[in-house]
Amino acid sequence: MADKVNLLQALGSFDGHWEPRIVAMLNDYKVLVVKVRDEFVWHKHDDTDDFFLVVQGRMTIQLRDRDVALEQGELFVVPRGVEHCPRADEEAWVLLIEPLHTVNTGDAGGPLTTDPRWV
Amino acid sequence: MADKVNLLQALGSFDGHWEPRIVAMLNDYKVLVVKVRDEFVWHKHDDTDDFFLVVQGRMTIQLRDRDVALEQGELFVVPRGVEHCPRADEEAWVLLIEPLHTVNTGDAGGPLTTDPRWV
Repeated sequence: MADKVNLLQALGSFDGHWEPRIVAMLNDYKVLVVKVRDEFVWHKHDDTDDFFLVVQGRMTIQLRDRDVALEQGELFVVPRGVEHCPRADEEAWVLLIEPLHTVNTGDAGGPLTTDPRWV
Repeated sequence: MADKVNLLQALGSFDGHWEPRIVAMLNDYKVLVVKVRDEFVWHKHDDTDDFFLVVQGRMTIQLRDRDVALEQGELFVVPRGVEHCPRADEEAWVLLIEPLHTVNTGDAGGPLTTDPRWV
């Protein structure tokens, strides 16, 4: 059985932005932590919603028709098929939950695509 | 599309212990917030893992062979089929994620069984 996870400790254990690390599994979903800064890439996931919870700092989920500004302790679920582009003016620490085979860059691909390893 | 959720605001909007409220959906999973105090009931979920993240305060997930003490910002996933009994000496505020049709008391049933409504 996996042990408990302290989110701040997990996030403090690595560097790099937009490089999520797996901290737990929930059935066939991966629970990830990621440090974000600057802009990610516009993308969508046609087969899954996309869960964001800000653990520390603040970030913005840009949608095509509006921005969703998230402070610490705020979560947002991007519905499947909806284009979005995460952005953070200063480094923010974030919890993500998504099905195991979800690709971080969705349909966009490109150099920010990464296969997360365990923290 | 649902709006963002501020966890402390959501948790501050209702009373009652062991009465989870849905704040978001992630595919066919419900994202819930719950206030906990004192002891829940020993139970297990044969068909799903069980996700806990402490938003404020502290709680203990009692297992048959050990206790998992969770502080604010700590998460734990109880594997499917594992008996557990959540407990909190003082009120704690917690985020839960589980498949839509999960029953909060698992195989135990009883008076604490509840069908959560939206916050």
